Amino acid sequence: MTQQEIADQLAIQELVSRYAIGADLRDVAMYASCFAEGAVVYGPGFEMKENLAATTIGFLAHLYDRTMHNVHNYAYTVTGDRATGITHCVASHIDNKNGPETKMDMYIRYHDKLQKINGEWKFNERRLEVICTTTVPIDPPRG
Amino acid sequence: MTQQEIADQLAIQELVSRYAIGADLRDVAMYASCFAEGAVVYGPGFEMKENLAATTIGFLAHLYDRTMHNVHNYAYTVTGDRATGITHCVASHIDNKNGPETKMDMYIRYHDKLQKINGEWKFNERRLEVICTTTVPIDPPRG
Amino acid sequence: MTQQEIADQLAIQELVSRYAIGADLRDVAMYASCFAEGAVVYGPGFEMKENLAATTIGFLAHLYDRTMHNVHNYAYTVTGDRATGITHCVASHIDNKNGPETKMDMYIRYHDKLQKINGEWKFNERRLEVICTTTVPIDPPRG
Repeated sequence: MTQQEIADQLAIQELVSRYAIGADLRDVAMYASCFAEGAVVYGPGFEMKENLAATTIGFLAHLYDRTMHNVHNYAYTVTGDRATGITHCVASHIDNKNGPETKMDMYIRYHDKLQKINGEWKFNERRLEVICTTTVPIDPPRG
Repeated sequence: MTQQEIADQLAIQELVSRYAIGADLRDVAMYASCFAEGAVVYGPGFEMKENLAATTIGFLAHLYDRTMHNVHNYAYTVTGDRATGITHCVASHIDNKNGPETKMDMYIRYHDKLQKINGEWKFNERRLEVICTTTVPIDPPRG
Repeated sequence: MTQQEIADQLAIQELVSRYAIGADLRDVAMYASCFAEGAVVYGPGFEMKENLAATTIGFLAHLYDRTMHNVHNYAYTVTGDRATGITHCVASHIDNKNGPETKMDMYIRYHDKLQKINGEWKFNERRLEVICTTTVPIDPPRG
């Protein structure tokens, strides 16, 4: 691996983490910084494109008390200023709308297309393949 | 760290991801590409060696509707063209053989021995230490 | 990224893994090697500082049969010989004190401050933000 190849891989890993943390912190600017102009995030039954960052963060804030996106596995192939690849994520969605708090875990395989723009890797497209979701109760506070 | 040391670490991380994704995609060639000749994968009550990739993928396909191997933690020590180390994985196994779909999570600490062959890192041995398994129901489809 | 920047990021990732594995293996020396003099680990209702490594490992050993710290997401900013950042961890705590074995998962966002001392990155501070905990039964042994 050349130093450039190494730097590309680490930059893409950092991007994938930034996406996850931006979503969880509900930081629209941080989340938006992950995407190229015109990017799309889509999966079973949904597509986010117009006003992508604000819409997505607003959606998460409306539906869930808090989220935690936990990322695993990085497998990206870089060709010049383009890359494609896969990463895994278990996204925990916590809410109490229906009584006691529950955690819904969404098991996601992201299929990504990326582009390096002015030296920075951005997502052009994230396709979410949802492997399953599970829901378990949150432990009550100790006290 | 020298550039070679950095490249070795990233290549081993990529190998660990490729193993996980190859298993989940049931891609025998991708999975086989992770192993040196004569490699062995073993754990409590099982050993995979002969025809390793095809046997393992066939076994997973026979028992489970789908799997998702989520990898965490990389701790590898490289000495020349050999390496040893540990990685963690939660491997989710989804099936509906006994009625509604369930997800069995196997919490695995892999104890690995690796070798660099013609510039490519391969597993010689993966020993699975299973910390526990848990089983929870999959959420029913929405709609 | 310069080679130094790359090496810093990988060294911090290795540190985060070493912390997790040291805790799980109950290896006081390995765990202690992660911290600078006077470091503190704290979160809701607890603070570990005096005799940090031995106290923490003793605490885990007293309360749980075994643990597995699974690390995700790395987002660290390095400025000279200091760094700050976030990592995620789902820490599984397994015990049978109250009957059959259960797994309590603690969903942790670590807020870290680090320092490079004699070329080695160490934690000065880890603040644990606990997103939630969940508890599920362990599957009984097969047989």
